[in-house]
Amino acid sequence: MPIRKVLIANRGEIAVRIARACQELGITAVAIYSEADRYSLHVKKADEAHCISQDPLSGYLNPHQVVNMAVETGCDALHPGYGFLSENETLAAVCRDRGVQFIGPASEVIHGMGDKTEARNTAIRAGVPVTPGSEGNLANVEDAVAQAGRIGYPVMLKATSGGGGRGIRRCDGEKELRQNYERVISEATKAFGSAEVFLEKCIVNPRHIEVQVLVDRQGNAIHLYERDCSVQRRNQKLIELAPSPQLTEQQREYLGDLAVRVAKGCGYENAGTVEFLLDDSGEFYFMEMNTRVQVEHTITEEITGVDIVKTQIRIAAGEPLAYSQSDISYRGFAAQFRINAEDPQNGFLPSFGRISRYYSAGGPGVRTDAAMYTGYEIPPHYDSMCAKLIVWALSWEELLERSRRALNDMGIYGVTTTIPYYQQILQNPEFRAGGFNTSFVENHPELLEYSTKSRPESVATAIAAAIAAQAGL
Amino acid sequence: MPIRKVLIANRGEIAVRIARACQELGITAVAIYSEADRYSLHVKKADEAHCISQDPLSGYLNPHQVVNMAVETGCDALHPGYGFLSENETLAAVCRDRGVQFIGPASEVIHGMGDKTEARNTAIRAGVPVTPGSEGNLANVEDAVAQAGRIGYPVMLKATSGGGGRGIRRCDGEKELRQNYERVISEATKAFGSAEVFLEKCIVNPRHIEVQVLVDRQGNAIHLYERDCSVQRRNQKLIELAPSPQLTEQQREYLGDLAVRVAKGCGYENAGTVEFLLDDSGEFYFMEMNTRVQVEHTITEEITGVDIVKTQIRIAAGEPLAYSQSDISYRGFAAQFRINAEDPQNGFLPSFGRISRYYSAGGPGVRTDAAMYTGYEIPPHYDSMCAKLIVWALSWEELLERSRRALNDMGIYGVTTTIPYYQQILQNPEFRAGGFNTSFVENHPELLEYSTKSRPESVATAIAAAIAAQAGL
Repeated sequence: MPIRKVLIANRGEIAVRIARACQELGITAVAIYSEADRYSLHVKKADEAHCISQDPLSGYLNPHQVVNMAVETGCDALHPGYGFLSENETLAAVCRDRGVQFIGPASEVIHGMGDKTEARNTAIRAGVPVTPGSEGNLANVEDAVAQAGRIGYPVMLKATSGGGGRGIRRCDGEKELRQNYERVISEATKAFGSAEVFLEKCIVNPRHIEVQVLVDRQGNAIHLYERDCSVQRRNQKLIELAPSPQLTEQQREYLGDLAVRVAKGCGYENAGTVEFLLDDSGEFYFMEMNTRVQVEHTITEEITGVDIVKTQIRIAAGEPLAYSQSDISYRGFAAQFRINAEDPQNGFLPSFGRISRYYSAGGPGVRTDAAMYTGYEIPPHYDSMCAKLIVWALSWEELLERSRRALNDMGIYGVTTTIPYYQQILQNPEFRAGGFNTSFVENHPELLEYSTKSRPESVATAIAAAIAAQAGL
Repeated sequence: MPIRKVLIANRGEIAVRIARACQELGITAVAIYSEADRYSLHVKKADEAHCISQDPLSGYLNPHQVVNMAVETGCDALHPGYGFLSENETLAAVCRDRGVQFIGPASEVIHGMGDKTEARNTAIRAGVPVTPGSEGNLANVEDAVAQAGRIGYPVMLKATSGGGGRGIRRCDGEKELRQNYERVISEATKAFGSAEVFLEKCIVNPRHIEVQVLVDRQGNAIHLYERDCSVQRRNQKLIELAPSPQLTEQQREYLGDLAVRVAKGCGYENAGTVEFLLDDSGEFYFMEMNTRVQVEHTITEEITGVDIVKTQIRIAAGEPLAYSQSDISYRGFAAQFRINAEDPQNGFLPSFGRISRYYSAGGPGVRTDAAMYTGYEIPPHYDSMCAKLIVWALSWEELLERSRRALNDMGIYGVTTTIPYYQQILQNPEFRAGGFNTSFVENHPELLEYSTKSRPESVATAIAAAIAAQAGL
């Protein structure tokens, strides 16, 4: 069934990204926005835009309201983006009930992969290695202590419905496990509405490696190679790389195959990401599957040339994949830098406010997926990511030098960003050698020590710009 | 000899492009500017900037003054860009005399390839086909008529020192040849300081196909495949494509080989472009060699992944090429749209003025090499090109749909641009089928018939931006 009009149930850069995909396909892109987002870029880039709520969040978070808007505006499909309702099984179910094509997997699959225990069992059934862990959810704290003894410390205590790095605690011994048990249950109840928790062996010094998969309704499943997201701070990814500089070609092929097995094993449809941990000995362990487009899908697009968001829409329209696995190859290296309006030297505190001037980076190998413009005021209600800077180069060494240049090339004035911190990371020998695990950020607090020399901007230029902007009214 | 500091003897987007290449290599980029260019983007993007003249042009056009500036600012090399002094043999000679490394071929080679007759003879010696033409320069109008009779009409009467589409006239018969003879000599004398002219057989319905070559000081020469620049208006390129959708794989390999032979034959060093005409019967004819970087080098970078400007600097520093021919491959298709501040519906009259708002295009497959920003006033003294929009996609069909989206994505307010005209071209069935010759623009005057519905911009947004820009002072 052809898709002619898509409701984008999101905001910010991913809403802009989806609008671009729609426009390339000749599909009308419909944006929704809260009152606080009235001047956001996704409203400008869409073909139509409708206010969904006066308050900043309720509209974006209510599946019924979002699907109502889709029906009312004549949309035949809905793209959830990432975050917000993207992994909410109710949204997918309501779409189905109301005759709106959900651009993503079936509601049951979202449910299944959102339940960590069920996801783990799916992987086991598909013959994919998982970390040693508790058998199902824990009955109580004594059960936890007994199972941890069997698995061996350190263990991770995890909320079954958790995700995005929340509801997870590391326990190095029995005492810590007992202390954390009630804490995680309480967190899980508040954040996810479920008190179920389980245990997993803690992988020491893990690399976070994830594989992009695409599955069509006809059952064709392929992978687009991996991304290395080991550079994280408190489970929030900062810099992502594709392919991983830490894998051999043999590991890469093996991992891609594992990911496809997971996707097939759960009856997946559309684009998804299978996340793995890689330990010091070279073993991979299935971690979870994200049943939506990822923030970092961009770098996979850069190395493979495949437009993932357009492919999502085509799959949802019932089209078979245009590529088989042997058609897919990768070229060069890509990095994505999440440009957050945050002050790294102040505990990464959000630095919302007005972008007084913005100069986009450009030139060879540079892609910008931004959600801002000169004069834009970043609303304080949402995520602090205001742009993604994506850099591609033929070699790893060239990627490092081009990334430095591109970060310098991007001029954001008026708010503090993570750019100077990334420049520090780019100078770090461990990072440059391509060897880092998820403790990299934590292990290198010295990278936060840099001088905040603000880049000078000509006052005359700013005056000229102000006059121009007024004259242009 | 390592290069540590480069004087960029140019302005606008190519000066920005060169600064980016320098910065990736850890080289200090020094900009020069006329008083009229004080607020131009290349001044902001360089590491240092120096005023070279009060008037708009004399500084950029005086080889002695430019090299003096390089010496005074401690530069060990100079990049000429395109246009201005880039094919001026004196600049290369003065650089050599003053101990500044010229980033380009030797002065003698610039001279040799700038002289159309000598260039033609070089091609003949290298076994590369040329158009039938006069033997050397014409003695007088009677000589012209005699030789044209031998070659056969239509013929092209060309200034020996010409270039960039100037000093060229087509003559369909003897009467026209006699009329044009004095006219071309007069034009050539004024524009190039030389009255020498010659004749070439006019290729009917030619495609303009050019090949990018790279030659290092060690004598290694490779090509980076071809570009199709057939979409021209009065010999000015508008849209360039790489690879050409009009060549077979066999023609592509053959043409690359011809180009390398020309480069080797003239003792070339650095990046250069060998231009050919392709006629209806599939024959190629050598046209000329451009001894500098081209405006459209970008699309070759997109399909091959090779950074041409960085390679230029490395060659000038004496480094051997990092690639052999077998390392070079191409992927997908790329298009470059020259975004000119011109009104296509008014004879492409320049539309200089202030950019009241500028939103860069972004997302997958989009590269922007721009020379503007919100509030920038395009000076009236120079070329009207204010940005290059470069689009890449895996297939020709995807290139067409992505180009449409990207042109729409690019928001330029305050001046009229060629964007809506390019949107028209993208809808043309002949263009979409990939079949067009250099008469395409001339043969399709109907593409100029479009409604100039200005894209609405929210007044509220513009007000917010104006306030922000002022607050940011």
